Amino acid sequence: MQLGYIGLGLMGKSMARNLMKAGHSVTIHNRSRAAVDELVLEGAREAGTPFEVAQSSEVVFLSLPDTPDVEAVIFGTQGLRGGFRPGTILVDNSTIQPAASRRIATLLSADGVTALDAPVSGGDIGAREGTLAIMVGGPRPAFEAVLPLLQAIGKTITHVGESGAGQVAKACNQIMAAAQMVAMAELLILAQKSGVEPSRVVEAIRGGAAQCWTLDVKSPRLFAGNRQPGFKAHMMHKDLGIILETGRVYGVPLPMSAVNLQLYEAMLQMGMPGLDNSAVIGVYEALAGVQLALPA
Amino acid sequence: MQLGYIGLGLMGKSMARNLMKAGHSVTIHNRSRAAVDELVLEGAREAGTPFEVAQSSEVVFLSLPDTPDVEAVIFGTQGLRGGFRPGTILVDNSTIQPAASRRIATLLSADGVTALDAPVSGGDIGAREGTLAIMVGGPRPAFEAVLPLLQAIGKTITHVGESGAGQVAKACNQIMAAAQMVAMAELLILAQKSGVEPSRVVEAIRGGAAQCWTLDVKSPRLFAGNRQPGFKAHMMHKDLGIILETGRVYGVPLPMSAVNLQLYEAMLQMGMPGLDNSAVIGVYEALAGVQLALPA
Repeated sequence: MQLGYIGLGLMGKSMARNLMKAGHSVTIHNRSRAAVDELVLEGAREAGTPFEVAQSSEVVFLSLPDTPDVEAVIFGTQGLRGGFRPGTILVDNSTIQPAASRRIATLLSADGVTALDAPVSGGDIGAREGTLAIMVGGPRPAFEAVLPLLQAIGKTITHVGESGAGQVAKACNQIMAAAQMVAMAELLILAQKSGVEPSRVVEAIRGGAAQCWTLDVKSPRLFAGNRQPGFKAHMMHKDLGIILETGRVYGVPLPMSAVNLQLYEAMLQMGMPGLDNSAVIGVYEALAGVQLALPA
Repeated sequence: MQLGYIGLGLMGKSMARNLMKAGHSVTIHNRSRAAVDELVLEGAREAGTPFEVAQSSEVVFLSLPDTPDVEAVIFGTQGLRGGFRPGTILVDNSTIQPAASRRIATLLSADGVTALDAPVSGGDIGAREGTLAIMVGGPRPAFEAVLPLLQAIGKTITHVGESGAGQVAKACNQIMAAAQMVAMAELLILAQKSGVEPSRVVEAIRGGAAQCWTLDVKSPRLFAGNRQPGFKAHMMHKDLGIILETGRVYGVPLPMSAVNLQLYEAMLQMGMPGLDNSAVIGVYEALAGVQLALPA
């Protein structure tokens, strides 16, 4: 199949590669060159503009940082929109505002183009190994048409509902993920300053009602002194911004997520935007005047 | 062995019964009669005061609502302290302030009595089935002496550290449990008001980084329209009070848990103290002017 992929960051590059491995012809476009050169060597075709990507693709994928990037690639100068042919499907793997995904889908449907919002969860490892969770919103026939392609890049693929529903699910995912990250930070620093070995506490509680992905996967990395991403703090900060904006648009006060956004804002101001999102514990170390003790 | 058990609520009654089933002779005391009558019929011996319980027991267990209750039973008129013989071990299954557990342990050690803080997690079902998680603080020899008794009431039994360490672990457990409950409420109401079926969202996200005990165990109950305890909201409110007080004593700002305490405070003021702690979603229903939609 003739595919396009725009946005070859840590996530996008791996997803584009997995589509190539599944036997598809992929036309790529990216702001910076390194990833382009790498994939061209592996057989991808380079396009100079999003417009050219649209002209040569039956399905176009995006993996871009934020809402304005997605809108610029679609509607900007030399953007996708001018090059789309009727019947094309746009699969947006970016995490952006649900309301923006809905707006994009409505505008493109006038051109006979179907947009699916299909944000992913599972980090760079999931992207590399093709085991991402993919949350999809948009018309079911288009979802079914691209399902074999999604199966090349992810494992748990859910059609959540109409346009924007994938982005809503991703926002919901991040509400819980951020809550777990911040709760882990609070409990580890509370344990330590109360004179209790933090790793013993995790051992005592991780099998009960506190059990979660974050304690299971991220606490061992913190105890190993590893705060490298994974999923970067400034991306979690961006996602919490989307969450609060979605709450504003649809009328939902979100007091806990609002506090969590402020904690990630602090993390950015403290000079830690590129650390893993679990490194929000660094904010608590500063607040409480202590460093997390590593197990002996 | 000659045991004592004081505090026969939903949790304590089941724990006392499991100690009896393990072949021990248990002397009981409780403020209200019904649980006493029930256990006496099953072979327990009744004592009129905590003092009498102490006089006839090698190990005394407590399961009481809060710090003042525990202090009254130990140090009050006709309290345990006057009746303890040197060598007695006190096992406190209540969830109270870590600093209070440490104070109690110090005071009792002057009498040759060893106090272990041993709060539990796992709810009324865990208490009935003897599958509780038990987090223990205090001297290791005393822990090892009572371990066979703890194995009659729980499954995951961890010696976390010195006196108070069990309470610290329980406080840490509740930081994460409350965060999951509140995050679940925020994400379900956000999904719904964004026009997405909440149960579809849970299905899409529960296998990834948002995975947790609360989504696994509690969301199906909410979707079944069931907000009965489980673990009551006013107890979570009490535990969050302990968490914030522990943060105050040991010097740890806890902004997210502070917000969560306010949300459970709202739940109490809205007349829902006896519902399950997952019913904090009722606060968000009120805030957002919507009722959680149950799946068709």
